Amino acid sequence: MAEDKLFEKKISRRQMLKLTGAGAAGAAIGVSGLGGLLNVFGMTAEDDNPESKNKVNFYGTHQSGIITPVQTHIYFASLEVLVKSQAELKELLQQWTPMAVRLMNGEPIGEVSSNGFIPAKDTGEAGGLDASGLTLTFGVGPSLFDKNELGLSSKRPAELKDLPHFPKDQLDPAYTGGDIAIQACAEDPQVAFHAVRNLIRAASGKVRLKWSQAGFNSFPEKNKKRETPRNLFAFKDGTSGPDAASKKAMNDVVWVDKGWLAGGSYMAVRRIQMHLETWDRTALSEQEATFGRHRETGAPLSLKNELDEVPLDQKDASGEPVIPVDSHVRLAKEAKAQIHRRSFSYSSGTMDATGAYDAGLLFISYQKDPQQFIAIQKSFGRADKLNEYITHRGSALFACFPGVQKGSYIGESLFKTL
Amino acid sequence: MAEDKLFEKKISRRQMLKLTGAGAAGAAIGVSGLGGLLNVFGMTAEDDNPESKNKVNFYGTHQSGIITPVQTHIYFASLEVLVKSQAELKELLQQWTPMAVRLMNGEPIGEVSSNGFIPAKDTGEAGGLDASGLTLTFGVGPSLFDKNELGLSSKRPAELKDLPHFPKDQLDPAYTGGDIAIQACAEDPQVAFHAVRNLIRAASGKVRLKWSQAGFNSFPEKNKKRETPRNLFAFKDGTSGPDAASKKAMNDVVWVDKGWLAGGSYMAVRRIQMHLETWDRTALSEQEATFGRHRETGAPLSLKNELDEVPLDQKDASGEPVIPVDSHVRLAKEAKAQIHRRSFSYSSGTMDATGAYDAGLLFISYQKDPQQFIAIQKSFGRADKLNEYITHRGSALFACFPGVQKGSYIGESLFKTL
Ligand code: HEM
Ligand code: HEM
Repeated sequence: MAEDKLFEKKISRRQMLKLTGAGAAGAAIGVSGLGGLLNVFGMTAEDDNPESKNKVNFYGTHQSGIITPVQTHIYFASLEVLVKSQAELKELLQQWTPMAVRLMNGEPIGEVSSNGFIPAKDTGEAGGLDASGLTLTFGVGPSLFDKNELGLSSKRPAELKDLPHFPKDQLDPAYTGGDIAIQACAEDPQVAFHAVRNLIRAASGKVRLKWSQAGFNSFPEKNKKRETPRNLFAFKDGTSGPDAASKKAMNDVVWVDKGWLAGGSYMAVRRIQMHLETWDRTALSEQEATFGRHRETGAPLSLKNELDEVPLDQKDASGEPVIPVDSHVRLAKEAKAQIHRRSFSYSSGTMDATGAYDAGLLFISYQKDPQQFIAIQKSFGRADKLNEYITHRGSALFACFPGVQKGSYIGESLFKTL
Repeated sequence: MAEDKLFEKKISRRQMLKLTGAGAAGAAIGVSGLGGLLNVFGMTAEDDNPESKNKVNFYGTHQSGIITPVQTHIYFASLEVLVKSQAELKELLQQWTPMAVRLMNGEPIGEVSSNGFIPAKDTGEAGGLDASGLTLTFGVGPSLFDKNELGLSSKRPAELKDLPHFPKDQLDPAYTGGDIAIQACAEDPQVAFHAVRNLIRAASGKVRLKWSQAGFNSFPEKNKKRETPRNLFAFKDGTSGPDAASKKAMNDVVWVDKGWLAGGSYMAVRRIQMHLETWDRTALSEQEATFGRHRETGAPLSLKNELDEVPLDQKDASGEPVIPVDSHVRLAKEAKAQIHRRSFSYSSGTMDATGAYDAGLLFISYQKDPQQFIAIQKSFGRADKLNEYITHRGSALFACFPGVQKGSYIGESLFKTL
């Protein structure tokens, strides 16, 4: 452990210099700023580095990666917890906290000097890349609260249980569940993966990777602004939904407002295979009827603009609803529930010897209550025309912690007696 | 097939207008430019569109994607051929040619109108994205020449046979071989995938996807210029090698100079798992000894700069070679063969229930003779220290066609009597 000491000392010195520098420049150092000098829970608290390029702040009321605008890449990891006591679990989250700050700063989690006869602190593959908009979002799954040795059963929110079986689900255990989730999103795939890898590596023996999935979003741009990305069915995906910039909307839809999870959110994750071959043989009109929207513009059927309101009550000449009764957007709306979607496409490899693409949507949504997701998925039920073209292969639900304040650590509220 | 006619007409009209416009602007239209007006092989020849944003030209002496600077994303596809005659195979390549031009122009391969009661010509998910530096590289594998019904056995270059078994190979048939390769590389993952998907879709019943692999490269930038990317072992990967900007070097190393493949190149593809967990437990000095280079700088051991020459003959104080005898770069150099590397990292999912990362290198190299690759891989043999940390899981070899001239088609020389 001699090298750990050395490491801490180095970091402290660097922090010290940074803070001294800031002081000399006349910048105000608040109480939270001084946290950088404190050795909290045996770890050095890290500062958000305002000088990092393309940085998202770690500290805040809420975790990053929930209402942060969706990035181009994700590496999603679902972990099994191996530790056998609550104290160790808490320690793990404490250990991860300054690392997460450094990763989101675009900094290595420790020295990368090349004279070491010990493994380097940081695996190094993000060297030279900037923060790249990295967000890290941590959550805990229902199975964590089942582990008697962790003594957390009394803390389990009533809402946190495995998602129910939905008709047509074909879940593969290899993509289902998990005790802890790390959602790493960034503008670069290597930065996202590097973050997860280093967190897991630092927790060697304490967690094991259960499943993971990389994904991407490709944004058309107009006047240098990103437009809604298209999913692999070529439809604009992410058009409708509560306004992430509205505090009220997010309070209504996303943020939990009670218990230790207050300020946090429930993350539903579904690994959904999209049968591209079948879809690609389908007439465009049929595809559009499936969603209730036009492919090219993203506009609701019969209308012109992506953001036009979906005319649920409008009928065509023959008296049929313009937005079909079995269309995805109608059924979603009929659930009368709202969720904040934050999905990514994936495509690599084949499913089997038929050569079917292993491709689809890593569907992710955030909501203050899993029932919001469940209501919509139930509304789809067997009715959703989209069912003909997709198969849900993976599923997980996580309670994502509230945001972290300087001097605190990821998930602290879970361990406090409330 | 009525819609096919319609489609061709549309394209011709557009082409016509484009050329007329160019004429009016006083631009010289060469003979090849007029090819756009010709209905060649039952298809309309497409023009490279000089107005496309971030476009790589399709036509040229050589195919794109071989000495084109490596991009951030790849979707590599290995296909099985289902057609039963040489004529059909030729037709397929003829059919693909104008599509490849359009894809590389950043254009849909056909109309995307949303009133169709037929499937749309283009799957549409690249809508709004620009050409994104897309390159498409087509090649044929040894197995194609084994198919008696295609009558190509007399055309098989002596060099084109399955790569030999190398010690330590653990090849999975699910990632090995293939009759045709499409290497789609771009600055965007959706653009790369879209290209492969549309080519395969247009060839429905004629080819089947055998295996595929997506990958990425992340480039640190300095003064707005891309530096050597790091692989998942965090080492700069792509430092040494022949100068792709030197015509002579490429003639010496990459371009075949005889037979129907003249102007083409052999592509070796290896899907190499990298055991990140083992690597990450290894001391930095050991990692550096494995490659013979420093991790942070990429410089050869004992030196300072990435581009410093590797001091193969230098000994340290105790008389040991500074660049270890079992190091990757020494063994590579000792093969006295050169290859042009063009690899991508991959990382998504797990190998099995132990949670080992499904991550590694989609190694790709181009050479005028597969023996160049084989010599280096043999030099590694059982000696390469890197063997402890990697496992070759997939393998394929393809003869990549020479470049395509306007009015010709992909692979034409294969079908000509030479
Ligand atoms: C591969 C599977 C899926 C695909 C391809 C897909 C695609 C789409 C598309 C194209 C839209 C219309 C544009 C938009 O508003 O974003 C949409 C809307 C929506 N989807 Fe999905 N979706 C999938 C799965 C799901 C799932 C599992 C849920 C939740 C249970 C869901 C919930 C919604 C909601 C709430 C809307 C907005 C409806 C509205 O208010 O207009 N989707 N989806
Ligand atoms: C996962 C597997 C591999 C990894 C991680 C890897 C990594 C590296 C690294 C870090 C370098 C030094 C920097 C550079 O010059 O690019 C290098 C050099 C090289 N590698 Fe690999 N490599 C792998 C597999 C292969 C294979 C399969 C071949 C060919 C059979 C190969 C051929 C070469 C060559 C020719 C060089 C340049 C040597 C020189 O002239 O200095 N590598 N590789």
